[in-house]
Amino acid sequence: MTVLVVGTVAFDTIETPFGRAERVLGGSATHFSLAASYFAPVRLVSLVGRDFPPRHLAMLRKRGVDLAGLATADGETFAWSGRYEGDLAVAQTLETRLNVYAGFAPAVPLEWRDTRFVFLANGSPESQLSVLEQVRRPTLVAADTMNFWIEHAHRPLLQLLRRVHVLIVNDEEARRLGESRNLIRAGDRLAAMGPRFVIVKKGEHGCYLFARKERFALPAYPTADVRDPTGAGDSFAGGFLGYLSTAGKVGRATLRRALAYGTVTASIEVEQFGVRGLRGATLAEVRRRYREFLRFVSI
Amino acid sequence: MTVLVVGTVAFDTIETPFGRAERVLGGSATHFSLAASYFAPVRLVSLVGRDFPPRHLAMLRKRGVDLAGLATADGETFAWSGRYEGDLAVAQTLETRLNVYAGFAPAVPLEWRDTRFVFLANGSPESQLSVLEQVRRPTLVAADTMNFWIEHAHRPLLQLLRRVHVLIVNDEEARRLGESRNLIRAGDRLAAMGPRFVIVKKGEHGCYLFARKERFALPAYPTADVRDPTGAGDSFAGGFLGYLSTAGKVGRATLRRALAYGTVTASIEVEQFGVRGLRGATLAEVRRRYREFLRFVSI
Repeated sequence: MTVLVVGTVAFDTIETPFGRAERVLGGSATHFSLAASYFAPVRLVSLVGRDFPPRHLAMLRKRGVDLAGLATADGETFAWSGRYEGDLAVAQTLETRLNVYAGFAPAVPLEWRDTRFVFLANGSPESQLSVLEQVRRPTLVAADTMNFWIEHAHRPLLQLLRRVHVLIVNDEEARRLGESRNLIRAGDRLAAMGPRFVIVKKGEHGCYLFARKERFALPAYPTADVRDPTGAGDSFAGGFLGYLSTAGKVGRATLRRALAYGTVTASIEVEQFGVRGLRGATLAEVRRRYREFLRFVSI
Repeated sequence: MTVLVVGTVAFDTIETPFGRAERVLGGSATHFSLAASYFAPVRLVSLVGRDFPPRHLAMLRKRGVDLAGLATADGETFAWSGRYEGDLAVAQTLETRLNVYAGFAPAVPLEWRDTRFVFLANGSPESQLSVLEQVRRPTLVAADTMNFWIEHAHRPLLQLLRRVHVLIVNDEEARRLGESRNLIRAGDRLAAMGPRFVIVKKGEHGCYLFARKERFALPAYPTADVRDPTGAGDSFAGGFLGYLSTAGKVGRATLRRALAYGTVTASIEVEQFGVRGLRGATLAEVRRRYREFLRFVSI
């Protein structure tokens, strides 16, 4: 089943204790698309500037990413630079240049409006809601958000939560939006705010799934070489939604397997800078890690 | 199978955002014993002062804890006071009074020296090694330690690691002793330093097991009401070693189940102040949580 993603396509400049990468391909929609592309065709809605190189487009197309929704505007592509220190848990943003993305109003191509699996990458809740106005009764819509919107767009965010099936946030966002230092309590509260499922990502500590009558937890894939966590969350979402779109039914077992696949695609992503990990790994590698991961977590 | 523990029996004064408890029963050997007592008879080696109340002894005996190794000395019992804030992850020690415990030289009663499962709670590596001199070919010895010994008794600690089967540490201790910010890398290194198994406790994030050819991870039990984490690690070790002693063989499957039982006894412990949780919970409750926990982590 095809997956639609709306988010950024960007240039990232990244410093970690393990090296530095300058103006490499990044952005939430990019990471998501590469991860989801192991499982399903991907439709990407975003906006880049005239400086965006054709080789990146070619690479994405080769991976089954349809770029009919990727517009080009006069000006420069969204550029982010950040630094990670210590245990790499938190990115320190050095600079964000929205550039052409400042004027981004997502337009889903007419022929994509019946896509059944939709990922709204981090963005203003208003912009995420505008995408929902354009798609027709999707099977599953998942949305990411961040602390900025939790603080500055609380009301539209709550409105969004009542309209999406899955909310994907990290632990700090969950604690803030769920108003509890206890993540279990926070997750239970988020699950009562609208979404059928709430996924809380905890980086090296794995993830939680909260539903009205269910909780589930997974450790992270045991990666001894984390070099660059940029895009880990979107790569997780890509593996999760990509697998789920192939599973037919969104049930207890398929959700859990989908989270394990998301864990695997995120692990591949963080082992190298930029998108090199996901660009280089084959589906066979994804499947091998998945089997290894099941052994790692099975009692 | 009987389990032997050497560690502290103490008075704790604890402050958390959820309340305060004054001079309640605490200590590593106490928490361990109560948790292990669901599964096996426990033999406790420790030292208290003349101020130690008989009602605590009676409670422990009622739970199947043999106190023939608990000596009484002139003076006061070990007393610790600490405070937890925020997400309760780290205890801030306000005061430690070793009192009679300053002169503690563990003496394992002669008739206990063939105990097959032994837990060396946190203490100086020299004192832990002295216990190993007293026991005869145990099936499994597990040892806890802390950052103080990692820094100030590094050489004897390394010597201890070559003589125990299981090392149990928390995440910060693992990172320090394993000399890596990456916990997987640190755990792998610890497993190469002697112990057959290394367990890394991560509080609300669960635990890892590292062996030479194996890794395993478990989330924590989903507890929305953590009130007092004091003793969580020792309660974890008690459930782990207690269950393992009943399993006959220390193999892949029994180890994983034992970690899940440790997770469960720790979860009961942290929901109330002091030892109230473990004192009040029945074996039926432990088993119920164990089944619920398996559902929580099963793919």
